[in-house]
Amino acid sequence: MKAEIITIGDELLIGQIINTNQAYIAEKLNTVGIDCDRMTTVGDSPTVITDSFTAAFNRVDVICVTGGLGPTHDDITKKMVCEFFNTELVMHEETLEHIKALAQRRNIAMIQSNTDQALVPKSCTVIPNFVGTAPGMMFEQNEKYFFVMPGVPFEMKEMLDNWVIPFLLKKNDGSVVLHRTLKTTGIGESMLAKEIGDVEPIIGTDGTVTLAFLPNQMGTKLRITVKDTSSDSAKMKLQHAELLLRAKAERYIYSDDEKDLEDVIGELLKERKMTLAVAESCTGGLIANRITNVPGSSEYFLGGYIVYHNNMKMQSLGVPEKLILDHGAVSKVVAESMAHGARMTSQSSVALSATGIAGPTGGTPEKPVGLVWIGYSDAESTFALKFNFGDYRMRFKDRASQAALELLRRKLLKMM
Amino acid sequence: MKAEIITIGDELLIGQIINTNQAYIAEKLNTVGIDCDRMTTVGDSPTVITDSFTAAFNRVDVICVTGGLGPTHDDITKKMVCEFFNTELVMHEETLEHIKALAQRRNIAMIQSNTDQALVPKSCTVIPNFVGTAPGMMFEQNEKYFFVMPGVPFEMKEMLDNWVIPFLLKKNDGSVVLHRTLKTTGIGESMLAKEIGDVEPIIGTDGTVTLAFLPNQMGTKLRITVKDTSSDSAKMKLQHAELLLRAKAERYIYSDDEKDLEDVIGELLKERKMTLAVAESCTGGLIANRITNVPGSSEYFLGGYIVYHNNMKMQSLGVPEKLILDHGAVSKVVAESMAHGARMTSQSSVALSATGIAGPTGGTPEKPVGLVWIGYSDAESTFALKFNFGDYRMRFKDRASQAALELLRRKLLKMM
Repeated sequence: MKAEIITIGDELLIGQIINTNQAYIAEKLNTVGIDCDRMTTVGDSPTVITDSFTAAFNRVDVICVTGGLGPTHDDITKKMVCEFFNTELVMHEETLEHIKALAQRRNIAMIQSNTDQALVPKSCTVIPNFVGTAPGMMFEQNEKYFFVMPGVPFEMKEMLDNWVIPFLLKKNDGSVVLHRTLKTTGIGESMLAKEIGDVEPIIGTDGTVTLAFLPNQMGTKLRITVKDTSSDSAKMKLQHAELLLRAKAERYIYSDDEKDLEDVIGELLKERKMTLAVAESCTGGLIANRITNVPGSSEYFLGGYIVYHNNMKMQSLGVPEKLILDHGAVSKVVAESMAHGARMTSQSSVALSATGIAGPTGGTPEKPVGLVWIGYSDAESTFALKFNFGDYRMRFKDRASQAALELLRRKLLKMM
Repeated sequence: MKAEIITIGDELLIGQIINTNQAYIAEKLNTVGIDCDRMTTVGDSPTVITDSFTAAFNRVDVICVTGGLGPTHDDITKKMVCEFFNTELVMHEETLEHIKALAQRRNIAMIQSNTDQALVPKSCTVIPNFVGTAPGMMFEQNEKYFFVMPGVPFEMKEMLDNWVIPFLLKKNDGSVVLHRTLKTTGIGESMLAKEIGDVEPIIGTDGTVTLAFLPNQMGTKLRITVKDTSSDSAKMKLQHAELLLRAKAERYIYSDDEKDLEDVIGELLKERKMTLAVAESCTGGLIANRITNVPGSSEYFLGGYIVYHNNMKMQSLGVPEKLILDHGAVSKVVAESMAHGARMTSQSSVALSATGIAGPTGGTPEKPVGLVWIGYSDAESTFALKFNFGDYRMRFKDRASQAALELLRRKLLKMM
């Protein structure tokens, strides 16, 4: 079965709200083997809404519509659905009772617009809304299924998870869809594609397996998708593709379950009962911030030194003034001294450091904007590596923080 | 002019990625008076892509396409655009030089797929990509404009803001659309609405002025939009609405030009030739990270102490052990001692601190998850204020960092 998702609302078309419903619905449909072919977002305009219904109904078997079911004048979805299915609104007593009970519990007086919410198209199957007032609707016609749900994400999710998806699971044609995402970093998309080489041996030629490269400033995700008729065969194909990919790119893969690098290094540190401190100049606290986004990070993260000013490098971390004068604050020896100083001062097992030129100004021909030294220190060694992360400040910080965490991951796994 | 947005990518259709590009583009088009009528999301499928191009081209004047311009096998947008406009790919020398220079600067070897990125449809105008490798394209036909941009949000935004929007601004139909966004913080949406009261005196009744409340975890934006026939009249109406809003809510407004709070406090510190240091526990580096996102922040930001472990609070900031033992690390006196310690140690003019319980665990009935003390210290006074920012870790950190920066803003402006 193929699906389309139609989201309705002026607030989406002016970019006031980011459309999270689409992605949520698509992901859930996917889990029951239904591919979403297209997503359409339209405003509270009768002709465009009807047009989108017609087009989707002609193309696919499952249509999921959200939005425009509220009690205000610009919520016209119910009216448009009635016209589309050539039916009329009737009072749905169960829904009315539910709304009355809800109003009473919340201590709100019932007004006309509340009562109107219990009006539903005569020919639909009502999908109960246990967490709000607007009921959902399902129309079945020529083995096509047309669902209408509220736009409030919380209400939509409840209805989708507990009514729509179980309903579709029973109707589904038996195809199985599996995904695996391998997150890589420390290598560009093009180089990664080159290392992996010809994808045909990995994904085969029968079209059941696909591989996508999804790059962002943190690295490139490799997404394997298998669509098959049996669960066993799908699992085998997924495993096969993953093994072959790993054989080519294992070194760069830090997660196969959507975890971020800060989660991964957190687990590695916990397993090893090690503690971490950071000394940041150019990244300005981003490394520490990412590490502390992980619940429970206080178990292994002792703290950080944001040594923006050179005095702080000297005073907090004991970086010798002579090193800064002779080599500059952005230098291999200062990065090393920062990492070493952070480890000694905090008494941590390992420490990371970053010193560089985030830009947009402050570069020289010898030390251009984008240059960064990432330092590492443990009881056995202290060293620093040189990178260039470009001249856009925010991305520079993201990439430098990612490189620091990746360096730690590789050291903890004895990959370097 | 009417617009449609087409976003391309399988990762969108399986719900792996939330489509933020759509909202961003729609909002920007809106600022130059172009309404978005419809947004369509399709996968990496030739027929569906072509079909979406045709439909949009028949309906509207401006089409913005993003995604599928990368160097890997599943990126087919460029090919489909060529077919659609009946043209062929040719090497674009400037882009090739740009890619080569980028590769050299990043110390990456040029491979075939990098070179291929410089191939562009013969009949397009190339939109340069200053922050990545895939060039953008613009096709002009029958006074319709068809833009193709990369799907990487960062690259798309740069291209949209600096090329597409200025281009469309010149082509636009003469209706004037003005926006002003007043960013508020330190007050909830409902309370803010109550303070502002009846909006009719502010926006009038002729429908040319609208006011939107746009809340997020950083505060509530008040967006005034004026759509009018003359620039003078629009400006006057905007000014009028802004003045009336300010009269009601001045205290909470920290920016009227989309600046973030870290930009605002940066300017205030620079004007006063003051320096800042921070001491963070529960915010884990987020305050420092935000401050250092601002170019030139090294002028006033000396550095920070991420004192996650209590030993670091004592050792780096001189917080007396007895204070921690008697009152706990999350307490008024420890927040004050942290701010004072950060100021003394770094020799800054002012210092901020934050200590709290970010969750999800670690709360007690007396000190629940969400509790945070924000400390402030300057030469004249040291104090701390208590907040509760709820039990969702990431939002807690955002809100705590915002409260700390807002406290600094109000102190610098002598509002408290």
